[in-house]
Amino acid sequence: MSIPQGRGATIESSTPTEPIRVVVLGGDGYLGWPTSLYFSARGHRVLIVDSFAKRRWETECGIRPLCPIPPLSERVQRWHTPHQLRKEIHPIAFRCCDLAHDYEGLVELLRDFDPDVLIHFAEQPSAPFSMKSRRSAVETQHNNVLGTLNLIFAMRDICPQAHLIKLGTMGEYGTPNIDIEEGWLELEHNGRRDRVLYPKRPGSLYHLSKVHDSANLEFACRVWNMRVTDLNQGVVYGIASREGLHTSFHYDAVFGTVLNRFIVQTVVGVPLTLYGKGNQVRGFLDIRDTLRCIELAALKPAKPGEFRVFNQFTEQFSMRELANAVANVGRTLGYAVEIAHVENPRVEAEEHYYNARHQALRDLGLTPHLLNENALASMIEAVARHRDWIDPFSIAPNIGWRKKPELPLKAGHVLAA
Amino acid sequence: MSIPQGRGATIESSTPTEPIRVVVLGGDGYLGWPTSLYFSARGHRVLIVDSFAKRRWETECGIRPLCPIPPLSERVQRWHTPHQLRKEIHPIAFRCCDLAHDYEGLVELLRDFDPDVLIHFAEQPSAPFSMKSRRSAVETQHNNVLGTLNLIFAMRDICPQAHLIKLGTMGEYGTPNIDIEEGWLELEHNGRRDRVLYPKRPGSLYHLSKVHDSANLEFACRVWNMRVTDLNQGVVYGIASREGLHTSFHYDAVFGTVLNRFIVQTVVGVPLTLYGKGNQVRGFLDIRDTLRCIELAALKPAKPGEFRVFNQFTEQFSMRELANAVANVGRTLGYAVEIAHVENPRVEAEEHYYNARHQALRDLGLTPHLLNENALASMIEAVARHRDWIDPFSIAPNIGWRKKPELPLKAGHVLAA
Repeated sequence: MSIPQGRGATIESSTPTEPIRVVVLGGDGYLGWPTSLYFSARGHRVLIVDSFAKRRWETECGIRPLCPIPPLSERVQRWHTPHQLRKEIHPIAFRCCDLAHDYEGLVELLRDFDPDVLIHFAEQPSAPFSMKSRRSAVETQHNNVLGTLNLIFAMRDICPQAHLIKLGTMGEYGTPNIDIEEGWLELEHNGRRDRVLYPKRPGSLYHLSKVHDSANLEFACRVWNMRVTDLNQGVVYGIASREGLHTSFHYDAVFGTVLNRFIVQTVVGVPLTLYGKGNQVRGFLDIRDTLRCIELAALKPAKPGEFRVFNQFTEQFSMRELANAVANVGRTLGYAVEIAHVENPRVEAEEHYYNARHQALRDLGLTPHLLNENALASMIEAVARHRDWIDPFSIAPNIGWRKKPELPLKAGHVLAA
Repeated sequence: MSIPQGRGATIESSTPTEPIRVVVLGGDGYLGWPTSLYFSARGHRVLIVDSFAKRRWETECGIRPLCPIPPLSERVQRWHTPHQLRKEIHPIAFRCCDLAHDYEGLVELLRDFDPDVLIHFAEQPSAPFSMKSRRSAVETQHNNVLGTLNLIFAMRDICPQAHLIKLGTMGEYGTPNIDIEEGWLELEHNGRRDRVLYPKRPGSLYHLSKVHDSANLEFACRVWNMRVTDLNQGVVYGIASREGLHTSFHYDAVFGTVLNRFIVQTVVGVPLTLYGKGNQVRGFLDIRDTLRCIELAALKPAKPGEFRVFNQFTEQFSMRELANAVANVGRTLGYAVEIAHVENPRVEAEEHYYNARHQALRDLGLTPHLLNENALASMIEAVARHRDWIDPFSIAPNIGWRKKPELPLKAGHVLAA
């Protein structure tokens, strides 16, 4: 049992384990969908929950993923059809529910499904979207913070033993001038010691919503004995796809992540865009490692009352290093790749210290897929198969962090390199 | 010009300063109303904004303040009548607006009034209320976090030069095992140094809403050059009243603060209730010092881009010390005062280190009103005048932090001392 990854790469099925009951909140999305398939392929029972808000936000922003994504019911059917005679693979169930607005539906599905673990991707996932307008900022914090707060209460009252795996982001930390630890910090101050929640100073109202979630969840562990794993994930790259089962891969200025964008820029022949100086450093991971990390967290759950934080990335790079790596591989494959600096639409440090710890998941058994020329070449070739469907005008940044952004909407606008 | 405080105490009018335009958000409440009068009495132009949500929450919880509070329009009229011939005192203006739900109204009032400073009390202010139910928790974080987020955008777009004074709480910090600094912490970690936001670990979903606010506001300072003073206030005590102009003094289990509750328990002859061991330590301040601190912050505003945090309290006491002090004064005045330990409805450390810095406001010129026997006697005598109106059944805690609180609603339930 394997899910082909781009070209050639596969996810091996891990050693069989006792099947568990898994709710994937936000199971229609870039990470939620392959996570659902990954757990289903291993014989676990999966219930997908989604409100399809993300599809609405995409339409609102005038963008769409790399390839058309069928309705979830059809995707589930396509997954199920080839496996229906294999008794260890169970049909993936689905409920439409908006965590922030339908508490009754949330309670009902938890009561009906009785999960062992909930994997929570059901958040507005874009920093630029959260900075687009007051309305989108409020919608982001409403959806994310109040949706998660409803989830806390529903789990407390319906399935208090279940383990919540919450997707956070490395962006919660910002770029402090000290080493970034995994969620907690042992410190000494005026001769006394304490273990405190790592102080955070993130760079967008989206990232702030995740900070708020983390604080609410730590409280729920303390007061209601919840068991929570908060995965502060780096920037994910890669294509989890299988014919007809593509995930929602974004390369646009709103929902796209940086390496995925560079790959698409290579394929369509526009310059790879560095925001500002391009010396910003971030943590990265292959989407296959996302799936494996979540599996590791699910199979080795947090203890009751434990707020466990893992920094979920495998390598750190500067944007400039990443662009150069993509450009080199692209040129080898015959693409004429250029790199351009554009005005930074964000407010962020462009020169900074960055050293983030990421040991806990390796200690649990993660063997990372590191970024190398083969991985980049596979991604470029996988994206090239969808070249005709790419919208090159959705790539240039059109949402500025400062008031009244001057960058025009959908202009393919690139400043001098 | 003075506002009598309980019996004998007065607020002296400070040295005259250039009049400023002040919006008091939440100006109908315990602190918002005397703040409005305080600024009006000093010749400043005041616009009160309130949604009256607090009055609704009181009704929902079956509780009411120490004395009946007339509608705001009537309170404003009662304030204005004796001063209408004094040209330095301007009528207090009023707009009804819910920050979380009426962005259009918020923008309009800022445009019409053109404030120099906004003082933001417009939040659900009770920890027990936030822990009452899922609905009250979500309502608390919705009202507080999204209301403040709307305010940030409205100020950014309408009055970006105005100074926001935001009421936070010392409870944001929790009870760390290290000294509590004023909002920021200089730390060293693995041989490197940084100045970070002080790590917080508060004790209720209400306190968490204030933590989220602070994080959103710090971001707004960084990205939009807002000027913000975040006042992490201790537990306020005291009665700011003038005949017919009483403020909304609470002693009940939901909105009452601890010292105010002890005073009322003394007057009605029920035991002063310590939650658990009673060794919890908190910072306290006299309501007159609240007003003076806000004035100091308003007249010496934060710089553009500055997120300035002051710890606004003057002394720290344990609950036990406080109960003993009240009991001693009460007995001197002829009351038969007892102290009882009740089961702690909260989840909090009952033995802990506590040393919180509170120097910045003194450096700006605050001369504290410290708690002494005279102050306690004045409060007891002021409360005694309203004895017939006190509801003794609203004092015992009826909201537990843990699931399914066992304490009965309105039972006057006191466990063995």
